[in-house]
Formats: sequence, C-alpha cells, structure tokens
Amino acid sequence: MDPDALSKAFVEHYYSTFDTSRAGLANLYQETSMLTFEGQKIQGSQNIVNKLTSLPFQQCKHTITTVDCQPSGPAGGMLVFVSGNLQLAGEQHALKFSQMFHLMPTAQGSFYVYNDIFRLNYA
Amino acid sequence: MDPDALSKAFVEHYYSTFDTSRAGLANLYQETSMLTFEGQKIQGSQNIVNKLTSLPFQQCKHTITTVDCQPSGPAGGMLVFVSGNLQLAGEQHALKFSQMFHLMPTAQGSFYVYNDIFRLNYA
Repeated sequence: MDPDALSKAFVEHYYSTFDTSRAGLANLYQETSMLTFEGQKIQGSQNIVNKLTSLPFQQCKHTITTVDCQPSGPAGGMLVFVSGNLQLAGEQHALKFSQMFHLMPTAQGSFYVYNDIFRLNYA
Repeated sequence: MDPDALSKAFVEHYYSTFDTSRAGLANLYQETSMLTFEGQKIQGSQNIVNKLTSLPFQQCKHTITTVDCQPSGPAGGMLVFVSGNLQLAGEQHALKFSQMFHLMPTAQGSFYVYNDIFRLNYA
C-alpha cells in the first residue's frame, strides 16, 4: 500500500473510531505513545484514551479536509498531518482542527501512533 | 536547552527569517529534506527555497499562536507543531495556518528540518 493510501486509510479508521467508540482507540496507541491535546501532555495508551473518553461532549463528528503524509526517516515511520472540522452534538458551528500523527511500524507489520498533537484553530 | 525552549527558539528563528529574507532558510534544510506545501511535494534544500522564494507575495508577517513539541524517537529528532496567522502585505485579513516540522540533529550538534508540512486553514 502506498504511503498516501495508507495514511488516508489510517485517518478514516481513526476518526470513525473516535466518532463511534472512543475507547476503541486504545489499540492504536502503546505505552510509549504521546498525546499533546490543546497543550496538555499525556503519555501511554490508557492515559490517552482516558483523556479522549473524558472530553466534555458525548457525540461528535470529524470531517476531514486535507491529509498530507511524509516518511519520517529510516525507522519506517510516517508523519500524517490532518486538517478538518469537528462538529459537536448540539453546537451550531463546527470547530476547525489540525492534528498530526507519527505512525511507527509494529513487529506485526501494522502501525501504531507514537506521536499525536491536536489543536483547535478557533475560526 | 529543554525541548520546549528549543522548539520555540527554532520557530522564532524560522519565521523571522521567512519574513525578512526567505533565501536564508536554505541553511535549515538539507538534500533529504521534504516540504509539502498546500499538498505540493518538494524535496531538497534548493528546491524548497526556490518554492518559498517564488510564492506570489513580496512581504509577509507570521504571528505564532501555539507551539507544541514532542521527541520523535531514539534518533534524537523533535516534532514541532505550530499554529498561527499569516499577514500578507496589502491584504486586509490575516490567513490562519498550521505547520509541522520534524527537526533532526546534525553532526555539528545543531538541528535541520527533515520534514515540513504546511497548510492554510481558510477561516
């Protein structure tokens, strides 16, 4: 699978999981994974999922505007840079966001999220 | 220097160079460096600077809103994620942008930009 197709597939899987069952994101992170969410630094799969599942909204829908990817170096990682809109249930206007993921290969030939940085761009 | 201070210093240096003398950015890239600029992929220091110096505006001013950083792995790299505003000379409204850099250490103990992804977030 070429990097662009792989990153698009990852992004679709990530946000559809986020929008339907946030706890399912735990499989995409490992103990060394880092999330910086609106400036707050969190490490480890369970802590990251605890953060994401405790966000103060029940339902949301991500819509992707752009996905860019680049290889991150000889270790086989991939950088994925996303921009899009986040619609929260009950809110009139969607929020713009941008997010980057650094995907690293697992021993099983899949990828996990090593770095994750999320920011809202208040429009 | 701690990673947060280092990334802030890099970001200030990068955008002040961009806003005063874009050609000076050549020193921050190497032959293996990648830029994805609004979806267009460019590789190598000279090609990247050719792209940046040929953008269709003479003067601009970046204002930084947020800077986040995370270590990218055992190779000593650092991911820097930026959001901000870009004011073009003669335009009434600033454009929002987000950009990520993957900084890698040089043999001389400094850093260069290995990955660079830039997107405007049309507000």
